[in-house]
Amino acid sequence: MIEARTLPGFMQLLPEDQILFDKIKNVIESNYKSFGFVPLDTPVLEASEILLAKAGGETEKQIYEFKKGDNNLCMRFDLTVPLAKYVAENFNELSFPFKRYQIGKVYRGERPQKGRYREFYQCDIDVIGRDKLSLDYDAEIPSIIYSVFKELDIGKFTINISNRKILLGFLEELKLENISTDVLRLIDKFEKIGKENFAQSLKKDLNLSEEKINSILSFIEISGDSKEQLSKLKNLKVENENFNLGIEELDYVFNRMKSFGIEDDYVRINLLIARGLDYYTGTVYETFLDDYKCIGSVSSGGRYDNLAGYYTKEKLPGVGMSIGLTRLFTKLKENELLKGKNSVVAKVIVLPMGETKEECIKISNILRKNNISNFVLFEDMKFKNKIVFANKQNAEFVLIIGEDEINNKKYSLKNLNTFEQQQLEIEKIIEILK
Amino acid sequence: MIEARTLPGFMQLLPEDQILFDKIKNVIESNYKSFGFVPLDTPVLEASEILLAKAGGETEKQIYEFKKGDNNLCMRFDLTVPLAKYVAENFNELSFPFKRYQIGKVYRGERPQKGRYREFYQCDIDVIGRDKLSLDYDAEIPSIIYSVFKELDIGKFTINISNRKILLGFLEELKLENISTDVLRLIDKFEKIGKENFAQSLKKDLNLSEEKINSILSFIEISGDSKEQLSKLKNLKVENENFNLGIEELDYVFNRMKSFGIEDDYVRINLLIARGLDYYTGTVYETFLDDYKCIGSVSSGGRYDNLAGYYTKEKLPGVGMSIGLTRLFTKLKENELLKGKNSVVAKVIVLPMGETKEECIKISNILRKNNISNFVLFEDMKFKNKIVFANKQNAEFVLIIGEDEINNKKYSLKNLNTFEQQQLEIEKIIEILK
Repeated sequence: MIEARTLPGFMQLLPEDQILFDKIKNVIESNYKSFGFVPLDTPVLEASEILLAKAGGETEKQIYEFKKGDNNLCMRFDLTVPLAKYVAENFNELSFPFKRYQIGKVYRGERPQKGRYREFYQCDIDVIGRDKLSLDYDAEIPSIIYSVFKELDIGKFTINISNRKILLGFLEELKLENISTDVLRLIDKFEKIGKENFAQSLKKDLNLSEEKINSILSFIEISGDSKEQLSKLKNLKVENENFNLGIEELDYVFNRMKSFGIEDDYVRINLLIARGLDYYTGTVYETFLDDYKCIGSVSSGGRYDNLAGYYTKEKLPGVGMSIGLTRLFTKLKENELLKGKNSVVAKVIVLPMGETKEECIKISNILRKNNISNFVLFEDMKFKNKIVFANKQNAEFVLIIGEDEINNKKYSLKNLNTFEQQQLEIEKIIEILK
Repeated sequence: MIEARTLPGFMQLLPEDQILFDKIKNVIESNYKSFGFVPLDTPVLEASEILLAKAGGETEKQIYEFKKGDNNLCMRFDLTVPLAKYVAENFNELSFPFKRYQIGKVYRGERPQKGRYREFYQCDIDVIGRDKLSLDYDAEIPSIIYSVFKELDIGKFTINISNRKILLGFLEELKLENISTDVLRLIDKFEKIGKENFAQSLKKDLNLSEEKINSILSFIEISGDSKEQLSKLKNLKVENENFNLGIEELDYVFNRMKSFGIEDDYVRINLLIARGLDYYTGTVYETFLDDYKCIGSVSSGGRYDNLAGYYTKEKLPGVGMSIGLTRLFTKLKENELLKGKNSVVAKVIVLPMGETKEECIKISNILRKNNISNFVLFEDMKFKNKIVFANKQNAEFVLIIGEDEINNKKYSLKNLNTFEQQQLEIEKIIEILK
């Protein structure tokens, strides 16, 4: 006999949690769909040369790669590279702008630690243009994420938005473009490490002059509401093309987001979000739960100039965001933000008493036709155990059907929360359960 | 530049097909749920020792197995072994009967050939009992499959049902229990190879006497409707306990299926379905599309005595069926059974004409609040190309919003099938699109 176990870093839930997990997944998917995005489902396995065309460094070390026959195979580590492959492969069949979402598992063989997964769901949504892509999509994408988190109803959140051109243009102006990646990495950490350590690192690690450090600090410390920030940025009068284009784009996108119905309070300009990746070239987003910032960003993304340069000469700009569902779910659960959420599959369980299975099945069929999920508990057990079973399933009701009930054409509906029990006709039962 | 490609044996669909695929998946899932089954999602990767506890022969050769660090890992090749592992691992947390479904990808590194996949979806539904499991579930499971295929509306189908105890008992009676696997394998092929070849094989390959061959033939050739078959079976007067228990069970399950609402014409007793696997111990099922038998069984399964003997001493009998969705989808498409099925994501596409994006977004929001999926096409293109785009997306309507429309508060709704175009107020538009 072998002890049944699951590998560390792989999430596997008990039914009650799995139901909640799936409900969150469904909220994400139905919102993605409601904006007319089409589903995509790419293989988990790809040829290594395809998947690793772009990868390197840390990512590559984490990848599950192996040989089968003569083929070098890889498990996908994100959904962006497969999207790039897909668009290049099917370029002539697709129409642009190509709006797709993909919800699926990705794999990273990291050293497992609390809150880190080796297998986890990403829920990606992207629009890809051909040659160019209207800036309006930079506003549409976060408005979809907004509608997701509103519907999830897990507390107030804020979508932070910036534009990398602003920071990069600013660093160009300071002649720091050669070390911009290092500076951006530090800026990403600013809120964590604090002003002192930040300035210290700029000096010691990057060897910057006092003057440049002060410039960077004055930039970073631009504060106020989003409109004030925009006007302060403009007042810096930096004569850099990228910088000014970035401000213009940010201004446009910020205002457009409101047209999409995002409430003022749910979006803010935050010049500190730089997103580590070189990948993003314009708008960038991070989303935080106001009362649980410690969770980190629950949905991030941005605009990129060219999706699939490794596979095609076509220029494919895009913008997208992603929700890391596995991690989000774990964090919501840890912080008890899922308490009281409905995790019911069968609303009612039908209990035969005596030789009434036949009638129970008929009633069960009628309920199902009325979209009331339910099942008959056929097992022979003590009544008490049947109720225990129904409670464990989170059913709201049991419907008790004995021979008396059949003769009277009235069935006993027992509410498992209030323990109230009523003898009712089927029509009335349907009415209550609906 | 690397040429973008997908590995052979891995399905990757264009949007239109992916939408159809997902719709079929949703029909399966919603039916599984309506009977109160809970979702399960196990890892794609498991420790080899766990997944291969039971495997052997052909299966083992096909498995994607590899080492990462010190671990031997396997990609799952079905959803049954992970279920066994899951139930053993979480035995104390689960309540029985445990009704679960799992829809997910599984992996078999077969030599790729037409219609064979290395990555494919299985849609499994099982009930697991503790120590015992009521025979009523043997009738419930196929009735769920029945409701799935009814809703899919892809033509008349028939669920074939038998009970392995009958055949095995019969072979016991003929003292052939030692070679029962070989005989069953031949019986599985009976319809394909025909009576002559079948008898020939029994004689040559298995060395059976004329008398035994005739017995087997007379058994196999039992015909008539299901009730006649049952009575002919009883009339054989075989004094074997297994045989008679099998008949009793089959009789019970067959009648119970009707209580669940399966129409007479959709189920038949077929003593020839033996299911190759040793695994099944009682009821067995195969499902065929009447007009496309060549597709093979579209949903199979059966009753097993003990799910997880490799992982636990608990006795866990169960019954389940599975739909091989990837293969099914391919076959339905090949046979043009999906023609005319709706593959729309956005019902209407909103087209701004001139500087009307702001108003378009507002209208789009209103439609979405009324559950009408839609999006604004922001891209600057010729009107003709916008219509081409909308047609490619299978949208049913476009809503044209220019400055005139805004002034009149009437918008131009164009039906892309009839080319009819009307100027309508938003309330009227919602009414039409709903």
